[in-house]
Amino acid sequence: MSIATGTRGEPVTPAADTVDIVALLERGRTLSSPVLRAAVDRLAPPMDTVAAYHFGWIDAEGRPSDGDGGKAVRPALALLSAEAAGAAAEVGIPGAVAVELVHNFSLLHDDLMDGDEQRRHRDTVWKVHGPAQAILVGDALFALANELLLEIGTVEAGRATRRLTTATRKLIDGQAQDISYEHRERVTVEECLEMEGNKTGALLACAVSIGAVLGGADDHTADTLESYGYHLGLAFQAVDDLLGIWGDPEATGKQTWSDLRQRKKSLPVVAALAAGGPASERLGELLAADAKSNDFDTFSEEEFATRAALIEEAGGREWTSQEARRQHAIAIEALNGVDMPEQVRAQLVALADFVVVRKR
Amino acid sequence: MSIATGTRGEPVTPAADTVDIVALLERGRTLSSPVLRAAVDRLAPPMDTVAAYHFGWIDAEGRPSDGDGGKAVRPALALLSAEAAGAAAEVGIPGAVAVELVHNFSLLHDDLMDGDEQRRHRDTVWKVHGPAQAILVGDALFALANELLLEIGTVEAGRATRRLTTATRKLIDGQAQDISYEHRERVTVEECLEMEGNKTGALLACAVSIGAVLGGADDHTADTLESYGYHLGLAFQAVDDLLGIWGDPEATGKQTWSDLRQRKKSLPVVAALAAGGPASERLGELLAADAKSNDFDTFSEEEFATRAALIEEAGGREWTSQEARRQHAIAIEALNGVDMPEQVRAQLVALADFVVVRKR
Repeated sequence: MSIATGTRGEPVTPAADTVDIVALLERGRTLSSPVLRAAVDRLAPPMDTVAAYHFGWIDAEGRPSDGDGGKAVRPALALLSAEAAGAAAEVGIPGAVAVELVHNFSLLHDDLMDGDEQRRHRDTVWKVHGPAQAILVGDALFALANELLLEIGTVEAGRATRRLTTATRKLIDGQAQDISYEHRERVTVEECLEMEGNKTGALLACAVSIGAVLGGADDHTADTLESYGYHLGLAFQAVDDLLGIWGDPEATGKQTWSDLRQRKKSLPVVAALAAGGPASERLGELLAADAKSNDFDTFSEEEFATRAALIEEAGGREWTSQEARRQHAIAIEALNGVDMPEQVRAQLVALADFVVVRKR
Repeated sequence: MSIATGTRGEPVTPAADTVDIVALLERGRTLSSPVLRAAVDRLAPPMDTVAAYHFGWIDAEGRPSDGDGGKAVRPALALLSAEAAGAAAEVGIPGAVAVELVHNFSLLHDDLMDGDEQRRHRDTVWKVHGPAQAILVGDALFALANELLLEIGTVEAGRATRRLTTATRKLIDGQAQDISYEHRERVTVEECLEMEGNKTGALLACAVSIGAVLGGADDHTADTLESYGYHLGLAFQAVDDLLGIWGDPEATGKQTWSDLRQRKKSLPVVAALAAGGPASERLGELLAADAKSNDFDTFSEEEFATRAALIEEAGGREWTSQEARRQHAIAIEALNGVDMPEQVRAQLVALADFVVVRKR
C-alpha cells in the first residue's frame, strides 16, 4: 500500500533524500534506551517487571526478550529538537525518555479502557498481568516522566515539564473523546480531527519541542516546532487510521479490520459517512444497525470486508490518504518559521516523509 | 472508641488546646475549594462531570449535591505549611489543591483496583460511570495537579512539583505493595509500616512541605516539615486501620469489618499475627484457610466478628493504638527542628491531636 507519495511515487523533498532514516531512528533508540531502562529500574517490584514486559524487554515468563520496541520516532524527534535549538543531541535525552514514558503510560491505560488484547504482536499488559497492574504501572510511568525532567532542577526543565503536562492533558482529552465517539452514531470529520490532534498530535508536538526547551530555546521557537510536530502527528494518525482498516496484520501486529471491529469512528469512516452518495448511505445504515446488533462480536471477516469496501467506495480511504499528505505539507511548511541548522531541517523533513509512507 | 489519648483521656499538648480545629479545617476548605472547582472545570466533558461526582458536588444523576468532601486535613496543612515558612496562607493554595488532586487521583484508581464499591457513603466512580472513566479522570486529576503548580512558572513551583512527584511515586509504590500483600499469607509489621508510609505518609508529608516550598523555604525546612507530615501520616493510617475493623459504619461510610472483608493485611492484623500465643496462632490458621476458601464472599457478620475478636485478644488492636500514639509523638517532636511562628506550631500540634482522636 502506498499511502502518501508524490506523482513520481516517492515523497518530493529533495533536501531530505540524503538522510539515512534508519540511522536517525537508531540514534534515538540507542541514546534514549539506557536512560529509559534505568528509569524503569527505579520502579518497585512487581511494577519494574510489568513495565519491562510492556516495553518488550522480557516475555510473560520473565525471560529476556528482544521485543519490538516500536518505531522510536519520538526519541529521534526529541534529539533533533535539541539540535534545532543549537544544543547537543544529548541534551534532548531526558525529554526523549519522558515523552516515551508518557506515551507508554497512555498505551497501558488505553489498552485496558479499550479492551485491546494485542499490541506489538504480544498480549497487552492487562491480559497478562491483570487490570490493576496496567493501571498502576501506567500511573508510575507518568510520574516517572515528571520525575526525570524535574530532577534536572533547571528553569528549562520546569518549562519542559509544563509542556509535557499540557500534552498529557490533551492526550487524556483525546482518549475521553475517542471513548465517547464510540458510543455515538455520528461523529463529524472536524470532531475526529480534533480528537486525533489531542491523542496523537499533542505528544508528537511535545517530542519536537522538548529537546529545544531543554536546550534553552525561547517560546516562539518551541511553539513553531510544536506546530510541525502537531501536524506531523495528524499525518501520522491519518496513516494509522488507514492501517487500522487496510493494514497487513503481519506488519501492524493487529487483527484484520482492527478499527472496524472496535467500531472506531476513525477518519476513513467519518469521511465516508460525510461524503454522501449511495455507498456512504449504505455504510451509514450498516453501521447504525451494527451499533444495535447483539451479534457484532461474531461477525465474519466478510462482513468487515463489506464495510471496508463501502468506506473505500464512498471515498473515505482516498480522503484520508489526501489528508495525510495535507498535514505532512503543513508540517514541513511550519519548519520555515524556525532558524536551525540545515542538516537538522533535512532530517526533520525526512522523518515527516517516513511517517506518511510507513507500513506499520 | 478512644484511640490515642493521654492518661487523662485527652491528648497532652497544652499549647494546642486553644486551637479551633473546626475553623482551621474550614479555612483550608474555604480557601482551596474554589480553586479546586475551577481546576476541575478545565476538564473536557464528560470528565468534568465524573470528577464533580467523585468530589460529591453532584449526584449520579447530575443534580447539585452537598456531598461529604472529606475531612480536608491536607488543605489545612498546606496552608499552615506556607505560614510555617513565614508566607501568607494563600501562598499555599495551589499546593493544597495540587495535593488534593493527587489524593483523589489515587482514590479513583485505588477504588477500581481494589474493587471498592463505596466511598464517603456513595457508590464509587467506577460503579457509577464505569472503569474507563475512573481510569481517565484519575489520570486527568494527576496531570491537572502538575499543571496547576507548573503554570505558576517560578523556581519554587518547580521544586514544589518535584516534591509532589516524589510523593506520588511513593503513593504508587505503596498501592503496589498493598495489592501484593493481599496475595501473601504473611506480611511483617515492618513491611506494613513501609507500605503505609508510602500510601499515606508521603502525601501528608508533601502537604506539609508544599506550602513552605512555594513560600520560598529551603530544603532543610521542607524536609523537617515533611518528617512531621510523614509520621503524622503513619499515625493517621494506624487510626484508619483501627477504624477499618472496628469503626462505626455510620461514621466511616464503609461496611462493617471493611478491611477484614478485603483481606487487608493492615496493622492490627499483622501485629496480631506477629504477637504469638494461642489467639495469634488461631487467627493465623483462620486467615490461612480464608485465603484458600471459596466461600469467603458469603461469610456472615459473625465470622468476621470472630476474626476481629482474635485480633484484639492477640493484642493487635492495642499495639496499633499505641503505634498511633508513638507516631503522633515523633511527628510533634519533628516540629522542634523548624523555626516557625508559635501560633502555627500550636495549630500543627492541634491538627496532629485531631488526626489521632478522629472517628472517621
